[in-house]
Amino acid sequence: MLDVHAIRAQFPILSREVNGKPLTYLDNGASAQKPQVVLDTIQRAYANEYSNVHRGLHTLSTISTENYEAVRGTVARFLGAPSEEHIVFTSGTTEALNLISYSWAAPRLKAGDQIVLSVMEHHANIVPWHFLRERQGVELVWVEPDVNGDLDPQAVLDAVTDRTKLIAITHLSNVLGTVVDVKTICAAAREKGIATVVDGSQAAVHMPVNVADIGCDFYAITGHKLYGPSGSGAVFIRPERMAEMRPFLGGGDMIREVHRDSVTWNDPPMKFEAGTPGIVQTIGLGAALEWMMDVGMTSIAEYEADLRDYARARLDGLNWLNVQGQSAGKAAIFSFTLEGAAHPHDISTVLDKKGVAVRAGHHCAQPLMEYLGVSATCRASFGVYNTREEVDVLVDALELCHKLFA
Amino acid sequence: MLDVHAIRAQFPILSREVNGKPLTYLDNGASAQKPQVVLDTIQRAYANEYSNVHRGLHTLSTISTENYEAVRGTVARFLGAPSEEHIVFTSGTTEALNLISYSWAAPRLKAGDQIVLSVMEHHANIVPWHFLRERQGVELVWVEPDVNGDLDPQAVLDAVTDRTKLIAITHLSNVLGTVVDVKTICAAAREKGIATVVDGSQAAVHMPVNVADIGCDFYAITGHKLYGPSGSGAVFIRPERMAEMRPFLGGGDMIREVHRDSVTWNDPPMKFEAGTPGIVQTIGLGAALEWMMDVGMTSIAEYEADLRDYARARLDGLNWLNVQGQSAGKAAIFSFTLEGAAHPHDISTVLDKKGVAVRAGHHCAQPLMEYLGVSATCRASFGVYNTREEVDVLVDALELCHKLFA
Repeated sequence: MLDVHAIRAQFPILSREVNGKPLTYLDNGASAQKPQVVLDTIQRAYANEYSNVHRGLHTLSTISTENYEAVRGTVARFLGAPSEEHIVFTSGTTEALNLISYSWAAPRLKAGDQIVLSVMEHHANIVPWHFLRERQGVELVWVEPDVNGDLDPQAVLDAVTDRTKLIAITHLSNVLGTVVDVKTICAAAREKGIATVVDGSQAAVHMPVNVADIGCDFYAITGHKLYGPSGSGAVFIRPERMAEMRPFLGGGDMIREVHRDSVTWNDPPMKFEAGTPGIVQTIGLGAALEWMMDVGMTSIAEYEADLRDYARARLDGLNWLNVQGQSAGKAAIFSFTLEGAAHPHDISTVLDKKGVAVRAGHHCAQPLMEYLGVSATCRASFGVYNTREEVDVLVDALELCHKLFA
Repeated sequence: MLDVHAIRAQFPILSREVNGKPLTYLDNGASAQKPQVVLDTIQRAYANEYSNVHRGLHTLSTISTENYEAVRGTVARFLGAPSEEHIVFTSGTTEALNLISYSWAAPRLKAGDQIVLSVMEHHANIVPWHFLRERQGVELVWVEPDVNGDLDPQAVLDAVTDRTKLIAITHLSNVLGTVVDVKTICAAAREKGIATVVDGSQAAVHMPVNVADIGCDFYAITGHKLYGPSGSGAVFIRPERMAEMRPFLGGGDMIREVHRDSVTWNDPPMKFEAGTPGIVQTIGLGAALEWMMDVGMTSIAEYEADLRDYARARLDGLNWLNVQGQSAGKAAIFSFTLEGAAHPHDISTVLDKKGVAVRAGHHCAQPLMEYLGVSATCRASFGVYNTREEVDVLVDALELCHKLFA
């Protein structure tokens, strides 16, 4: 089991107080804190090694380019991708999913074609497909989880018709914590020639991911949830799909030649990376992923499973708390409402007085909120640096809420 | 006149050596170095104040959101925009120009409609318009500078026809240093109902900019050239144009409501900002712009004009050097080739041995290279921290090149 106190010591923000109490940061589903090695990497990149990348021959540009491009290999290792050439850098999952929508789907899907997605999707994995519905008549086909929040892969496959061109599915629900069996879905989809997009924003934070094993066409991750910088991210794209994609953003780096009357494109993955990229964020993302791999993704998953079990047991003991999502193998993400009708925003505000940071709202998952019959929930989402003691702090604070609002 | 040594002391990287020589960083046109206040702001944001923005009620989220949103006002002040509501955050100018192409132009321009642009444009202000040519038959109409590299605003207006829907023009050429009289162009365009996009990537670094005075519809800036973080930027958009734009990237924050069969949008400017944004980069951009305004944009312009005059005089003394662009009021950007046919890449490599960082290549401006009849140039581009002594170092290093390659 990993040494959580040694890990906590690496995150400077965790030693601060909020409202006179030690910070209990349980908002990791929204964004994670950063270890010192990421902060140091950012500082070094700016203070000693900074230049634009790719287009220079001078020393700083060479250093900067090497540091930047090395991250492509780090991401490939992190995701189990066969080659770093299958990795496109993005500013995060939202840009990645829009890239897929604009570059792969928009030129290929026509009116009446269908995209299958679950009602558990984050808006980032919904709105880019709504664009195709609005703009070109593509149909969205929705699949619901069961009463525990589990998503039966067969239910997804049952929604497939001969008009299905794409299945877009989360690997791990940001609200319920449900882990989806994307491997079964992708294997069946592949046999039928249906493309598969997996939103790995949450999953890649909490468990080992191997895109070769999953067999998906696209797998998107976002750096700021992976203990890395804001504005960083990457997407694995199977080379056959890359070959089918037209450019998305136009500008520097993604071109081969620009003339007045014509333009030709760089080879993938550069074809999909336009302009001066997020140089230092991407270098910081590399440091974050190396840090995670050093801790060990299996160790992270085991530690967080223990934390989930402890948190689940303690929260189950609060009979006035409605926890959404009871999937056995879920991640340590707990969305809940409180009987007695206190609004989740009020709960969040009370918890904050105790130094506990949770999120309240629709969590960018309004179709799921509608399915659950709620307008909002509170969400406590755990990360690798959280502890059982912090679960206890959360429970104490919730008991105070119960007293206040009962 | 500003105290350049006091300014230099604020940039940690400027005290480093390259190849055993003090760094002479003359690659500011590609990207600028960062002052300590920007580095400190980034560190503080991550180490003590980090959270996702907009969607949280807890203390860290409130702090982070306030710091992030305050930058909108800073950008508005920096650009002379009437309101911070006219500012959309981007990852840089490339994303901004693609936003305009996808959100404003693509749904409005039809086959045969024309976009006027200069051959001095950076690829970021060319390729998004090429997309419209390739995908929907829009025509690109090109305007050339005169022999000195000056662009006559009347030449731009003479290229306008009744099919012209957009003029996309740089405010300052990244290769020639030419400053374009965008105000005259925008005023005439506005009378004819033609939209105007000004690429301010270079101009905003070197001179005071006031979008209300210029009268443009769109003005894009990029943080990494403005002594700010990579992956940051913003675009001013006149509200009438914002109202004409459909969403570009889909995801969190830009929506009002997402249902299975419908979606509605947030108000501008949020309508055009999807997903978790570049939180810390944007906060760092704010610090960079405040720093620039503290130094004073007029002071910066005056100082750099003096540096330009000195550099021009010294480079003019090298009768084997061909400097491209002789505009009287140009910025301190010098592109050149060397008689005797040494490739610009070779020149750059020799200069690097002397610690001098310049860029060699097409500078993402291939149509201009074609117009100039060269495939590549070397470019020395100065910033606020450069000195006359560094001009001398450049000239000495060029004289060495001349000896080596003559």
